[in-house]
Amino acid sequence: MSQHTMYNIIDRKKNGEKLEKSEIKWVIDGLMDNSIEDYQITALLMAIFLKGMDPEETADLTDAMLYSGRTLKFDGENVIDKHSTGGIGDKASFILAPIAAACGVKVPMIAGRGLGFTGGTVDKIEAIKGFKTSLNLDGFEKLLREKGMVLIGQTDEIAPADKKIYALRDVTATIDSIPLITASIMSKKLAEGANGIVMDIKVGSGAFMRNRVQAKKLAKSIIATAKRFDKKAVALLTNMNQPLGTSVGHSLEIRESCEVLKGNGAKDITELSIHLAAHMIHIGGAAPSFTKALSMAKKTIKDGSAFKKFEELIKNQGGDVSQINDYTKLPLAKVQLKVLSPKTQYIKNFINDEIGFLCTELGGGRKVKSDIIDHGVGFVFHKKIGDKVQEGEAILTIYHNKDQIDKADEVAKKILSKVIKFSKTKVSKPEIIYEIVR
Amino acid sequence: MSQHTMYNIIDRKKNGEKLEKSEIKWVIDGLMDNSIEDYQITALLMAIFLKGMDPEETADLTDAMLYSGRTLKFDGENVIDKHSTGGIGDKASFILAPIAAACGVKVPMIAGRGLGFTGGTVDKIEAIKGFKTSLNLDGFEKLLREKGMVLIGQTDEIAPADKKIYALRDVTATIDSIPLITASIMSKKLAEGANGIVMDIKVGSGAFMRNRVQAKKLAKSIIATAKRFDKKAVALLTNMNQPLGTSVGHSLEIRESCEVLKGNGAKDITELSIHLAAHMIHIGGAAPSFTKALSMAKKTIKDGSAFKKFEELIKNQGGDVSQINDYTKLPLAKVQLKVLSPKTQYIKNFINDEIGFLCTELGGGRKVKSDIIDHGVGFVFHKKIGDKVQEGEAILTIYHNKDQIDKADEVAKKILSKVIKFSKTKVSKPEIIYEIVR
Repeated sequence: MSQHTMYNIIDRKKNGEKLEKSEIKWVIDGLMDNSIEDYQITALLMAIFLKGMDPEETADLTDAMLYSGRTLKFDGENVIDKHSTGGIGDKASFILAPIAAACGVKVPMIAGRGLGFTGGTVDKIEAIKGFKTSLNLDGFEKLLREKGMVLIGQTDEIAPADKKIYALRDVTATIDSIPLITASIMSKKLAEGANGIVMDIKVGSGAFMRNRVQAKKLAKSIIATAKRFDKKAVALLTNMNQPLGTSVGHSLEIRESCEVLKGNGAKDITELSIHLAAHMIHIGGAAPSFTKALSMAKKTIKDGSAFKKFEELIKNQGGDVSQINDYTKLPLAKVQLKVLSPKTQYIKNFINDEIGFLCTELGGGRKVKSDIIDHGVGFVFHKKIGDKVQEGEAILTIYHNKDQIDKADEVAKKILSKVIKFSKTKVSKPEIIYEIVR
Repeated sequence: MSQHTMYNIIDRKKNGEKLEKSEIKWVIDGLMDNSIEDYQITALLMAIFLKGMDPEETADLTDAMLYSGRTLKFDGENVIDKHSTGGIGDKASFILAPIAAACGVKVPMIAGRGLGFTGGTVDKIEAIKGFKTSLNLDGFEKLLREKGMVLIGQTDEIAPADKKIYALRDVTATIDSIPLITASIMSKKLAEGANGIVMDIKVGSGAFMRNRVQAKKLAKSIIATAKRFDKKAVALLTNMNQPLGTSVGHSLEIRESCEVLKGNGAKDITELSIHLAAHMIHIGGAAPSFTKALSMAKKTIKDGSAFKKFEELIKNQGGDVSQINDYTKLPLAKVQLKVLSPKTQYIKNFINDEIGFLCTELGGGRKVKSDIIDHGVGFVFHKKIGDKVQEGEAILTIYHNKDQIDKADEVAKKILSKVIKFSKTKVSKPEIIYEIVR
């Protein structure tokens, strides 16, 4: 019989003590069979938030959570997943997955929906008519084995403990904890059977991590945990102080992803996607060196094989491929409002999360989980940090519906007054990749 | 409309920020009308436990909790309560209340029941046949106004928020938090209408506070809170490294209380009770100085007025007074087992909480709330710290029932091997009152 009590476990963690593997397992078991009350779980989560967990505890928590549901295994195959902590205009998944797949890496994607200021990969791909994201785990495994690429939404079959814990963290201000984030991400990646993981950890005003110190801690925690499970991992700390690429909004981001895959993308999103894909190719063993992986990744864009893979992904899951060859078939809002610069100046910075909230204002995001997404609205940015903009020149275009003229005007005013910071003097263009952590 | 959200309040406290009065009030209101979930309350309690509350927040919490139920007011009257943090053999309430009452102070007692290693004042007085402790607040007020003294159990009418919060703290390891303890004690004392409070904060192996640093922090917190409500307060830090007085157990402690009131008590319990009573007399304004209050208190023992008041208390609440004039009428266990010293030595120390647990083993305490107390069992200590005991001389006597012979033998062995620490060399007798904090 177990000697553990929740009181004792909370008490030990609150005093900063290290929890045993058997204690952590006992908590997750109790969470899953409802023998531990939520009010004890949240007290423990707050104690973990404030007192931390060491790498061993974090791995033990990951382990307990990953075995709370089904697990897949792909022995001997190069199944490499990518995870982004989320940001504004982040459509890198749609670009890097086809690139990596075109180079022979198998890419399993179990992605989220948007809430708050960040959009969701699953919501974005659903701008494509017919694309099925609600496959079960058997369907997921079949597609991955047979087609080498799959993109589905969260399933209760994978790490259900994470769903329960996340729901409690979400209402108790315990989200931004390094060990809890690590266990949440890694339990799902390990359960889906990934042999390696490439992390894109966003840093800046449009990211969950506002500074590099925290971001690097998370990177090191993820990598340490991956190593304890004998998995390969690389983490990139990347810039999220302005929208990634030029567009924000569901259809707009699918359109932009296609352009990047065709070689016509903006520098930042192109560079980021190719680098992330190259790390996947490298750790997946499809290239002997990162340099080689990088040139392989670039080649898939030049020779059209990456775009072809994206078409395949859409076809595999029932989507209408014609929409990515004729963008007018994508659901796009009918009215375009150009936001003009009141004077000649330089773009200095973005209060980036606000862009997400303003997109939600137009219907292109969720305030509560039951909200229905309008795939057609969004923003296209013509100017970004470091760009000079002339008086009367368009900084961005707002895509909105006919009945949203007043709202769009309001959004335009807010963007000029609160979201974009200007400078009279020249501003240098920021780098997209800050640092690589292995 | 309130702008508060529980998420934001937890988030602010977890970051070590100071909560606003309106936020604290909003939490307690939400706790009472069940609009806030327990799992959010416990996360906040843990954040308070680990990040603390300053004196203003503590007073605001006290205020919100005290107004969660009914409040009494005794303007212009010297209603002074005493609170003890609880210990082994602590029967001081039965002694100091009659002394203070005999000197003209009104003594309102809303006391607790025992759980774990400490006994409860309400349980102890119920050794007296017929004594009614379950009066409602109207009955409590009437007796206090008319008779100047009353002793009842916890009532849901007084600070019901405390009951709810305490129940959650009890299962989430957040009991030992200075601001939470302060608000718990003070909300009840202020709600019952006390104009002043004398705190007996026990320090030692048989107390909640194991060291003086923590005890002094609690004393200062209680006094600071009392001052913010314009109430008088004094706190005594007192020794709880051995049983207070000579007896532990319900009937035994009633018997000892009577002996102290008659002037035949052990030095420690007599000195402590008289000092606590004198502080009540002094801050209650019944004596111009503490010195005068002390001599008044002593006089009530010499002239028998204190014992008379104790008889009155019992009569007022329906108890059988004959039991305290003829102790054989008290429910007392039939068998006495003397625990003898295996050699000549000095008593050095007690693992004091163990005495409480062993009393519970014999039925004289509760393991769970529904357990029924056996008032008759307990211990009488013939020797205490600093005393020399000869080989074969009795250190204590165990009072147990006829069917408990084996159990009593076990208890005797444990006391000799684990509870009492001995010394070959002389040990000095400890002081009972360490420090007075105002």
